[in-house]
Amino acid sequence: MESLSVALGSRSYPIHIGAGLIGRADLYGEYLSGRSAAIVTNEVVAPLYLPAVRQALQGTRITEILVPDGEQAKSWQVLNRVFDALLKARCGRDTLIVALGGGVIGDLAGFAAAVYQRGVSFVQVPTTLLAQVDSSVGGKTAINHALGKNMIGAFHQPRAVIADLATLDTLPQRELRAGIAEVIKHGVALDAAFFQWLEQNLDKLLARDRGALAHAVRRSCELKAAIVAADEREAGSRALLNLGHTFGHAIEAGSGYGTWLHGEAVAAGMVMAAELSSRLGLLDQNSCLRIRKLVERAGLPVKAPPLRPEEMLALMSVDKKAARGERRFVVLQSIGQARLRSGVDEQIVREVIVAAAQ
Amino acid sequence: MESLSVALGSRSYPIHIGAGLIGRADLYGEYLSGRSAAIVTNEVVAPLYLPAVRQALQGTRITEILVPDGEQAKSWQVLNRVFDALLKARCGRDTLIVALGGGVIGDLAGFAAAVYQRGVSFVQVPTTLLAQVDSSVGGKTAINHALGKNMIGAFHQPRAVIADLATLDTLPQRELRAGIAEVIKHGVALDAAFFQWLEQNLDKLLARDRGALAHAVRRSCELKAAIVAADEREAGSRALLNLGHTFGHAIEAGSGYGTWLHGEAVAAGMVMAAELSSRLGLLDQNSCLRIRKLVERAGLPVKAPPLRPEEMLALMSVDKKAARGERRFVVLQSIGQARLRSGVDEQIVREVIVAAAQ
Repeated sequence: MESLSVALGSRSYPIHIGAGLIGRADLYGEYLSGRSAAIVTNEVVAPLYLPAVRQALQGTRITEILVPDGEQAKSWQVLNRVFDALLKARCGRDTLIVALGGGVIGDLAGFAAAVYQRGVSFVQVPTTLLAQVDSSVGGKTAINHALGKNMIGAFHQPRAVIADLATLDTLPQRELRAGIAEVIKHGVALDAAFFQWLEQNLDKLLARDRGALAHAVRRSCELKAAIVAADEREAGSRALLNLGHTFGHAIEAGSGYGTWLHGEAVAAGMVMAAELSSRLGLLDQNSCLRIRKLVERAGLPVKAPPLRPEEMLALMSVDKKAARGERRFVVLQSIGQARLRSGVDEQIVREVIVAAAQ
Repeated sequence: MESLSVALGSRSYPIHIGAGLIGRADLYGEYLSGRSAAIVTNEVVAPLYLPAVRQALQGTRITEILVPDGEQAKSWQVLNRVFDALLKARCGRDTLIVALGGGVIGDLAGFAAAVYQRGVSFVQVPTTLLAQVDSSVGGKTAINHALGKNMIGAFHQPRAVIADLATLDTLPQRELRAGIAEVIKHGVALDAAFFQWLEQNLDKLLARDRGALAHAVRRSCELKAAIVAADEREAGSRALLNLGHTFGHAIEAGSGYGTWLHGEAVAAGMVMAAELSSRLGLLDQNSCLRIRKLVERAGLPVKAPPLRPEEMLALMSVDKKAARGERRFVVLQSIGQARLRSGVDEQIVREVIVAAAQ
């Protein structure tokens, strides 16, 4: 087991990475200040991993809350069912919520923890690669709204992240690829050497080589933890982690949530962001191609769905990253060097959208 | 105008108290970092004060969001309508939400601000005495759940509180009395001298003497600001402000929200808490009577509704103040000296409930 720390003063917390961690009672024990824990998970994850977590929490009063699988669980309706279950079980402020599952479960259970009785503690137990390398770290929680993804949420840091690499063994290949999209994003946005490592080790990742996965998860978490420690509430540099997300969220929203996996939309969005950077004269053509090629090799989409440019543009402007009504883009100066750019000519964005749909 | 400060480091904010403040552009100006403001108010307050606030925010893109009057506005449904309106108006993260109204509006709009796009700034413009002396200060925001009051919420501090004493002129007498309940609570729990001042000046408050109201609002805010600065998230002393609320919330829930005003339930709950303190041998009989008498003179209820003791007890145990499933009570050692007590014999609580219903 390796442990990193997200340095946030009194709210600092560890990220534990290793195989077989999910059932280790000692990793949960110190956060169980109360006599009550609530495990939020879904119908797919529960049969696989709930028994191990239940075992690890032995001696605690456990409330188990199962929600449907998939992005549609990030809704008011499902969130309310979580609250119903917590209240019916008379869970008090000292209840520890355990988010057991992928990014959807982490976002949903984390948001429930953020607002249940004005905030209770929670632990992230991510069981997908995407959640382990990205969504479980940093305290962003949210549900979706019909008019936009992640529009209702909170910054609420977990007490710990327990990333069990063994859970990746059961992950469908499509979801493994979606997780690799966020791994690639970390390299593209922040770390050229890591990007190069990914070019060399992508096949091992796709074959679930445990050592390669461990490195990818650890390096992604290191990069993300440093950014989060410097800018918890996304006033500045944290926005760089949204590379590919402005286009990506529009793709997700325009296709109906759940049609595209989040990682798939981010992959296509990242290729579009690279293309935009290239057209703006920031990124050289070769780097743009390297990004596209790595995404393609990972079996991820490099094209957007056939949405009209006006529709994409409209979906992009309700994105949270729109400051003062103006779209800001995360663009690339080079691989590993993302930065924010506002005042981008809409005509160029339109060209990128048209080109990406072909 | 007088201004106090709630000292919370980088999140410190002023409370402005005076007549005619609501229309002063300078009091909002510095928080309008964006070009967008959303005023959340209700159908009763809007005709009275919305024009003045609109005027003060001139030059800003304003979204006006009207919700129904009364406690039922603190619901999922109404909160969602606020989100719908914000999203349809394409309000971004730099939108300032203005909560214009009483405690319900402050709680609802404040919670909307806490979770809209993971948190936007807001300003409290309380137009009831209860909101001016209590709910607008301290950052507690929430909506209700069928299984308990304020069960879903957040600690989210406003950027400023603008307490315009002139708005109290239009307040129905019943709501004025409900606000006086929280004023009395501050004296009973924290400040014997203030309690004595209230005994001497209650008639002036009931007659809306501007000078007496100014003193009551200022002293209440001073007491509350000091407590909040010391214990923002209610890990300790802030719980003392919940005097009367364990019984009070049960009264509200048991009678159906909206039947009793919050202040009325707190008034009866406070008399019950004094009675409990007396039966526990903590508070002398004379002090207990003084509290009851002041509440009575304010035209507030000193009796609970005729609920069965089992029902009251059940409603009390889902209250957030129940730590580790055990009820904690705010009790009184003397007037002005509240403290927390757990492990209270349920039989004594039952006796207090029975006595209060007669």
